[in-house]
Amino acid sequence: MEDKCTMVISGSQLMSYISDFTTLCWFMEPEFQEAVRRLHRVVGNAVVDDRYIVVGTGSTQLYQAALYSLTSPGGPEPVSVVSAAPYYSAYPEETDYLRSRLYKWAGDAYEFDKNGTGPYIEVVNSPNNPDGTLREAVVKNRGDEGKLIHDLAYYWPQYTPIIRPADHDIMTFTFSKSTGHAGSRIGWAVVKDKEVARKMSKFIEMSTLGVSKDSQQRAAKIMGVICDDYKNFKSDELFFEHTRRVMADRWERLRQVVDRNQVFSLPKYPKQYCLFSGELIEPYPGFAWLEAKEEEEEIDSQKVLRGGIKVQGRTGSRFGVAQKYVRVSLLSNEEVFNQFLERLSTINSISNGH
Amino acid sequence: MEDKCTMVISGSQLMSYISDFTTLCWFMEPEFQEAVRRLHRVVGNAVVDDRYIVVGTGSTQLYQAALYSLTSPGGPEPVSVVSAAPYYSAYPEETDYLRSRLYKWAGDAYEFDKNGTGPYIEVVNSPNNPDGTLREAVVKNRGDEGKLIHDLAYYWPQYTPIIRPADHDIMTFTFSKSTGHAGSRIGWAVVKDKEVARKMSKFIEMSTLGVSKDSQQRAAKIMGVICDDYKNFKSDELFFEHTRRVMADRWERLRQVVDRNQVFSLPKYPKQYCLFSGELIEPYPGFAWLEAKEEEEEIDSQKVLRGGIKVQGRTGSRFGVAQKYVRVSLLSNEEVFNQFLERLSTINSISNGH
Repeated sequence: MEDKCTMVISGSQLMSYISDFTTLCWFMEPEFQEAVRRLHRVVGNAVVDDRYIVVGTGSTQLYQAALYSLTSPGGPEPVSVVSAAPYYSAYPEETDYLRSRLYKWAGDAYEFDKNGTGPYIEVVNSPNNPDGTLREAVVKNRGDEGKLIHDLAYYWPQYTPIIRPADHDIMTFTFSKSTGHAGSRIGWAVVKDKEVARKMSKFIEMSTLGVSKDSQQRAAKIMGVICDDYKNFKSDELFFEHTRRVMADRWERLRQVVDRNQVFSLPKYPKQYCLFSGELIEPYPGFAWLEAKEEEEEIDSQKVLRGGIKVQGRTGSRFGVAQKYVRVSLLSNEEVFNQFLERLSTINSISNGH
Repeated sequence: MEDKCTMVISGSQLMSYISDFTTLCWFMEPEFQEAVRRLHRVVGNAVVDDRYIVVGTGSTQLYQAALYSLTSPGGPEPVSVVSAAPYYSAYPEETDYLRSRLYKWAGDAYEFDKNGTGPYIEVVNSPNNPDGTLREAVVKNRGDEGKLIHDLAYYWPQYTPIIRPADHDIMTFTFSKSTGHAGSRIGWAVVKDKEVARKMSKFIEMSTLGVSKDSQQRAAKIMGVICDDYKNFKSDELFFEHTRRVMADRWERLRQVVDRNQVFSLPKYPKQYCLFSGELIEPYPGFAWLEAKEEEEEIDSQKVLRGGIKVQGRTGSRFGVAQKYVRVSLLSNEEVFNQFLERLSTINSISNGH
């Protein structure tokens, strides 16, 4: 859809810090906010009526803005931040790199549910990176002590059935995973509470004094083209149908290779009814979450892939589980994906990799 | 220069997180880095040979990246961060909002020089925001205990004589002040030490997983047009000559009004030899740093402007000095600037504002 999505910015446009000083998130372009709301209404993956939108420099920044918005200076202990293992490998580092007194990474949410005490924030990543599962919070309700952040980066029809319009306190999304434009560093949060949205905006103000307007406008344009196509049914193949078909094709070929060489296994995902497509469909996650079949827990699957077939995956230990797991991205370009499958098909035993 | 600077991005460009994985700052567009080096060579305001460039989401993010790069977890006390008053009003907040154990805001560098102890980082903002002075570090050398960050956002020929090519350990610059494109949130650091540059890049990776490529490319394009014009002498008026003329005109008119109504005074700046223009020239800072002439220290100049003539300034107390000072931006568009002068000329006594 290259031509329709082409963005033109003259030298004198988008120069100010300010987009709209009368709104809470004063550095958000009105066109961006409108496009986000429209896209969610077209897809039906999140409730946006009577919700605040906050733009961020990717969902990475919004995750940190959410932690800031849910904590307050002066508490005796930093608030524990947890997520069910296997959890997104960047959470621990993004939580702890500044050694904040406001919050600290506390690991696996299942563990915290059993043995943890005190105030906490649980990050619910659904569909989950790395394993693609649809998730709910796992720490049992403890009254006012717990707060939730829903990271819904992959809750789009190309990856998963849309089982309901998500409606949580803080939900984060990203341009990177919705349309694939990671280089623009654009994310957004859908937020119920005004004070939380205000604190998130304040965080972004202090962190980066706003968010690239060039990229906000580009995102608005591309989302607008996608929505227009759904309105007019003008394309031969609409965006999420097209991208879902690509993912389905990749998963089919991936499962064939994995089944054939019997070295790794992949998760099985139940079919669920998708409100967007109106069909019972299977998830096609953005990552292959490979588990070595051999029983030995010590197997280092990342090393097997790297050493054996020169494929770069990310080890399970980065996600809080055993290193017999390894995550491989399925979102590369076609050529790289084909290379990956070709090489994966040459692995006949786990020892190939040693 | 609208047309020459127009940026066109097709739907499928700049989609990846990665710009160049073989370099230390892997999310930096090679075209951006090249344009930055070229611009500094044309202007002569900073040494860039054998230096690392790190791109950031505005210099706001780079300031925080620099703090991170100069501190290490595990120290007994957070490192003190100081800057000579009047200091840029955002430093305290940007240093302390996450209650880091790595560093903490410790206020006026003059005060620290007299009474402070332990490891510290001094931020040298030159020309200084708010008062436009060219500055040097003020905390006297204490061996290995002190580190410096030079915030050179305004060290461009439209604001100041270029007295030498700056050559410090960490220097930060921003697209916002060099060409006026604040909305793009693009800044860069020029860094001597490889390990510091690596840690700054790592900070930006954890903070926002890179920097908008759309904006990096737009910045590269606009800087390229400016440099081409200097190479070819094709423009009627070159960029820094044009912008300097605008600033000179504004300062002349501002000084007339301020001299006439005798309510405020402005700093006097010495003429200095500018390597860029080859002339002895005066600074034309981006802000008017107004001081109420009445002796009474309690005068709230921000209130005088707001109440008396509905002009929004920022009070001296935000910059670590008395509230008889107020900072007013001179970088608005022509209409707003004219309105400001018109209103300022109606103030005849400080009591007008009460």
